[in-house]
Amino acid sequence: MSHSKTVAVIGTGVIGNGWIGRFLAQGLDVIAFDPAEGAEKHTRKVIKQIWPSLEGLGMAEDASQDRLTFVSTLKEAVQSSDFIQENVPEREDIKKTVLTSIDQYAKPEAIIGSSTSGITATTLQQDLQHPGRVIVAHPFNPVYILPLVELVGGEATDGTTMEKAKKFYQSIEMKPLVINKEIEGHVADRLMEALWREALHLVNDGIVTTEEVDAAIIYGAGLRWAQMGPFLTFHLAGGEQGMRHMLEQFGPALKKPWTKLEAPELTDELKEKVIEGCEIHAGDVPISELEDKRNEFLVRLLDLVEDYWPNSKIS
Amino acid sequence: MSHSKTVAVIGTGVIGNGWIGRFLAQGLDVIAFDPAEGAEKHTRKVIKQIWPSLEGLGMAEDASQDRLTFVSTLKEAVQSSDFIQENVPEREDIKKTVLTSIDQYAKPEAIIGSSTSGITATTLQQDLQHPGRVIVAHPFNPVYILPLVELVGGEATDGTTMEKAKKFYQSIEMKPLVINKEIEGHVADRLMEALWREALHLVNDGIVTTEEVDAAIIYGAGLRWAQMGPFLTFHLAGGEQGMRHMLEQFGPALKKPWTKLEAPELTDELKEKVIEGCEIHAGDVPISELEDKRNEFLVRLLDLVEDYWPNSKIS
Repeated sequence: MSHSKTVAVIGTGVIGNGWIGRFLAQGLDVIAFDPAEGAEKHTRKVIKQIWPSLEGLGMAEDASQDRLTFVSTLKEAVQSSDFIQENVPEREDIKKTVLTSIDQYAKPEAIIGSSTSGITATTLQQDLQHPGRVIVAHPFNPVYILPLVELVGGEATDGTTMEKAKKFYQSIEMKPLVINKEIEGHVADRLMEALWREALHLVNDGIVTTEEVDAAIIYGAGLRWAQMGPFLTFHLAGGEQGMRHMLEQFGPALKKPWTKLEAPELTDELKEKVIEGCEIHAGDVPISELEDKRNEFLVRLLDLVEDYWPNSKIS
Repeated sequence: MSHSKTVAVIGTGVIGNGWIGRFLAQGLDVIAFDPAEGAEKHTRKVIKQIWPSLEGLGMAEDASQDRLTFVSTLKEAVQSSDFIQENVPEREDIKKTVLTSIDQYAKPEAIIGSSTSGITATTLQQDLQHPGRVIVAHPFNPVYILPLVELVGGEATDGTTMEKAKKFYQSIEMKPLVINKEIEGHVADRLMEALWREALHLVNDGIVTTEEVDAAIIYGAGLRWAQMGPFLTFHLAGGEQGMRHMLEQFGPALKKPWTKLEAPELTDELKEKVIEGCEIHAGDVPISELEDKRNEFLVRLLDLVEDYWPNSKIS
């Protein structure tokens, strides 16, 4: 799929707007639709705000905020688009209704990617006329900076759809991870949720504050994980024997009592502890300012890390 | 504790040598002891190899590899040292025997930090003559680059010991995280193990390879976690409402079946899958070369990230 094609973005919340930013920066034409009042105004404001980050990442020569068009019906958005990214609220009934409309009006050869974090492609494509062109294409916030996108086909997805989708996301500077089995929460969110559950336990049990959990990640594993994941990190920590040595040494720890923890009950008390912890940590700095700082950091980090990422078939 | 003081390093495996590299780079005098044959030769080779990384990080003016002395008895190592870092094998009987000797020969005002990842300070300080100066000081690999060190006192640890230790580790460019309750595995390893357990499930169930797990971290959350931990990341993802909104939206996911997973059985089949996955991923590149690349990356990343870490009381 070449850059001269048109992409439709259905639903312009945080994720939809993130996609719009990425698509525009890559020099694509974007047609957006969202029935919410003031949606266009809000999106244009967001895109203007993140444009410096997008410039920092490196833009296509012909990239322009003017290549974004808002339309007033879903039909207008999808009927002439080659690629459709769906980002409506994470509820099965809403997603299925919207996808039925997209399926009705889109060109048969158009590909439909859903940003869902928790619903399978098999569920989403049920009852559609052309289910073979539907996949899950799950991105990560901020979508206009982070390169990961999880691609998962459903039972009815065509092999060619997945191939085309993979090439498309690669062409817009992403790292598509094709997952061949459908699983609740896909892969990356399951990994993050596992860490998050343990973090909630540590806060709930009064061991550390939310800020201290963050520090325990940032100043240690977090620095490594921007370049190497948990497996290769352990492989390096095992000396000449690599992972073989690590599994001998740390395997037994998997039998310890704390490896059997269920998620803690999200009581009002725990909620307040977590919310207050974050608010204290953020201090008087508005979230938008923290976002700008995060974006500036991520743009510089991406510039640095690209020379150091391992050669990988996920590329 | 000023830089003119002398540090003893007991046990010169991967962790002990990492400490030696950090101490030397900070301009300290280091006295090392390890009864293993060839220990001194091996350590000097390692320090020479990592010296360029240490220079990249920025060294004290008077830093020198010549300020490392190996001695042939534990007594000689500890008797005139102001700070003693213990890094013998992770077995309670071995650690307690060695600590009893350290306690016997060290100056009463010397502080003893144990690098243990899994034994509590309360256990380690039992039966010592001066238990009040013993703490857990658990670092992260590579110790000479990553700034995190977890400090945990035991029931008998003096408050002044913890204060002095915190200042000492800060003075050698570390981020000490003081944990006020003793807990198995401390904090950072529990968070990492939680993610690791889920990763093993995903590989065991044939969902993804080890390399794909790594990609799912590197290209998404890993990039963020070098600057912001999981809590502040979610706080930013929640819009103006911050963490309050996130807990409303994602709280229910904590009830899903996959949040109740126990660690998978580490069968021979799973072991081979994990080992082979890492070996394929690493390709023909020797581990030492991967380490050099990792170090070069981490040095540049640390240089970048220091401007962006949130102001934090963990500093």
